[in-house]
Amino acid sequence: MKKKRIYKAHILYTKEPGRFEVIENGYVAVGTDGRVTGVAADLASVQRSTLNAQRLDGEEAEVTDFGDRLLIPAMNDLHVHAPQYRNQGIAMDLELLPWLQQYTFPEEMKFADTGYAERMYRHFVRDLRRFGTMRACVFATIHTESTRLLMRLFQEAGMGALVGKVAMNRNCPEGLSESVEDMVQGYVELIGDRFEEKSDGLVRPIVTPRFVPSCTPEMLRACGELAARYQLPVQSHLSENKDEIALVKELEPESTSYGDAYDRYGLFGQTPTVMAHCVWSEGEELQLMKRRNVMVAHCPTSNFNVASGMAPIRQFLSEGLRVGLGSDISGGHDLSIFQTMVYAIQVSKMHYQQNHDRPFLTLSEAFWLATKSAGSFFGQVGSFEPGYEFDALVIDDSDLNHDNYSLLQRLERYIYLGDDRQIEHRFCRGKAI
Amino acid sequence: MKKKRIYKAHILYTKEPGRFEVIENGYVAVGTDGRVTGVAADLASVQRSTLNAQRLDGEEAEVTDFGDRLLIPAMNDLHVHAPQYRNQGIAMDLELLPWLQQYTFPEEMKFADTGYAERMYRHFVRDLRRFGTMRACVFATIHTESTRLLMRLFQEAGMGALVGKVAMNRNCPEGLSESVEDMVQGYVELIGDRFEEKSDGLVRPIVTPRFVPSCTPEMLRACGELAARYQLPVQSHLSENKDEIALVKELEPESTSYGDAYDRYGLFGQTPTVMAHCVWSEGEELQLMKRRNVMVAHCPTSNFNVASGMAPIRQFLSEGLRVGLGSDISGGHDLSIFQTMVYAIQVSKMHYQQNHDRPFLTLSEAFWLATKSAGSFFGQVGSFEPGYEFDALVIDDSDLNHDNYSLLQRLERYIYLGDDRQIEHRFCRGKAI
Repeated sequence: MKKKRIYKAHILYTKEPGRFEVIENGYVAVGTDGRVTGVAADLASVQRSTLNAQRLDGEEAEVTDFGDRLLIPAMNDLHVHAPQYRNQGIAMDLELLPWLQQYTFPEEMKFADTGYAERMYRHFVRDLRRFGTMRACVFATIHTESTRLLMRLFQEAGMGALVGKVAMNRNCPEGLSESVEDMVQGYVELIGDRFEEKSDGLVRPIVTPRFVPSCTPEMLRACGELAARYQLPVQSHLSENKDEIALVKELEPESTSYGDAYDRYGLFGQTPTVMAHCVWSEGEELQLMKRRNVMVAHCPTSNFNVASGMAPIRQFLSEGLRVGLGSDISGGHDLSIFQTMVYAIQVSKMHYQQNHDRPFLTLSEAFWLATKSAGSFFGQVGSFEPGYEFDALVIDDSDLNHDNYSLLQRLERYIYLGDDRQIEHRFCRGKAI
Repeated sequence: MKKKRIYKAHILYTKEPGRFEVIENGYVAVGTDGRVTGVAADLASVQRSTLNAQRLDGEEAEVTDFGDRLLIPAMNDLHVHAPQYRNQGIAMDLELLPWLQQYTFPEEMKFADTGYAERMYRHFVRDLRRFGTMRACVFATIHTESTRLLMRLFQEAGMGALVGKVAMNRNCPEGLSESVEDMVQGYVELIGDRFEEKSDGLVRPIVTPRFVPSCTPEMLRACGELAARYQLPVQSHLSENKDEIALVKELEPESTSYGDAYDRYGLFGQTPTVMAHCVWSEGEELQLMKRRNVMVAHCPTSNFNVASGMAPIRQFLSEGLRVGLGSDISGGHDLSIFQTMVYAIQVSKMHYQQNHDRPFLTLSEAFWLATKSAGSFFGQVGSFEPGYEFDALVIDDSDLNHDNYSLLQRLERYIYLGDDRQIEHRFCRGKAI
């Protein structure tokens, strides 16, 4: 049976975007269900919280002391392509279309081979863990077997993942095209594997039409029906670049916006939905996203690399949209969501430079996007408030902390300068990973 | 006595911006003066080159085999503030002015204390080496003693550095203001220390007016006279942001551009000159830079962090300007010039996104900017062509090379994904550092 635990460290997290909660030498208590029962500066009060929350079983929780280390919520990656892991950091000199045709599609076709898939997906899951990401919305490929394998790797690792077998049947090579029937059948099989049950909800399928240009109306309709019938979440790409938007207008002439094209098929918030990029989302599309509670996966690194543009995140936040961050490997080159935070701030500073009425993202806002905001797509994830699943990282920043830095400066330095070396422990829903 | 050497590895470098020279299992020969005598795919021809170049002394050069590793030119950093090293990666939520007043100036004042300076400068030089930068244009502070110390640390490390005692006497706290006489006297002392002689030219002073707003006309004039009298190079900041440009116009009403304000005092190419940022340089200023052979230190990371803007490097290159890269610690947060290359490409992609007539920087162009182009400010540095000083890095990318990547893909992956861990050996002018 799992034990109750109490962790002692310098605790930093964001309840709200505007500021950090900072508890020097604080305690966080975690119940047997992996959820936070209390967080405080004094041991006595978090000890009480473990008694109250856990059926008053009276057993004392064990205290683990992380000393001078930082304890922060783990990272969430709202958009990442696992089968593009081999292509991380290459082919950056190509534009979107030749890049897809010369690099992305040929690579994804290799995942018909489960041996290849296993080798690459093991790298991917290992490195996701390495960089402190405990939950991810993942695109796989059309291949059911390989997708099952990826889900199993996440389950074995104890990490949280919404994994999408990719639906696509037009504007792509034959080897990456699947019939609507096979797509549906593949999903039914994956649902039948009961990963959700076996992982206690950590690993689940997510309906994943690649994007409108890759899917016929029949395919989009089938995706929407799958989502509705099995109450599955949905992920896709939205308004990444202007040519793509023009193409969608052509392919779906009756839709009033790119977002509306998804909406007409039940793929835009009818179940929980996350859309990657939204660089050029505006007007009616934004209003629809807000009404439907559609979440934005902001992928600033990728948007630079693929020359898409700079998404106006401040505007999205002001209008009340939900936003999280995505690495978007391999359009993005960096698996670290900490580096993605830095890029998100930098993009917002370019908007600010052009228009001082749009204040740039502060560090606490970027951190909140990556933790509590993005985490909300997975449940109560991304904060240390009582009830939240304990997804956490222990950061040993002693090599970066060569002067008398404050705790907030230490966290800022870790975000800007750190890497996987400083992540000493990782937890997903209370369990050491 | 130094020995002739031959190194075997996969050799990659850029003679010209448009393409990489790639020699699989190639050889580069280095003479006793630390300069390349030959580079080729076959041992015999580079062996001959060592005989020809080195007074035909007949001795066989020793061959060091780096196996499957990559051998590339070392990095050059054209703009970095050594005394801001403590502030690396903090205070990013502040704008330029409060950032200078609350963080930068108070930090620089601490360098009146040589004990503090030694501690911080040791960190700085160690980490510059760590990230593979063998030559740098460095801002110190107004303090002659600390600046001497920094020059000594570079000399002891065997690395190349143009180190600037900073000249400033207005719009700054009293503790960072120095009289014109003391400034000149300080430079005369540093020149008298004969670092140039003792380091065989690797370490030299560089005249460093902080920027026009920090210097009275008398200070600027004295700087220009110093540069002319001692034939010293010059570095400063130029057209970083729009408020600054407006301020310069106010302070130097007779100048026709910010660049012209330097030019009137003999600080704009009368001796070799590098100007950091140039984000908003245009028209006459660009023409003057071209005529005067003034080099641009492009600091894209800093320009993002400080919300300055995005310098139009493609335009600069098309107009024939000289450009290199700078980390600009602590406006920039990353000491790695490899990461600065990535940012330079990304900035150019945002220009491209807005105007497809400006192609984005390719990887070879960014690499060339950081090596051969930037290196030209230090002499024949940044290439493996015969006659070039052998500044080199040996990259063991085996942890990144998990599939059958080509040599160019391995280099691209190292640039995008790598860090100090993969740099196994470093050379500056032939000497292992």
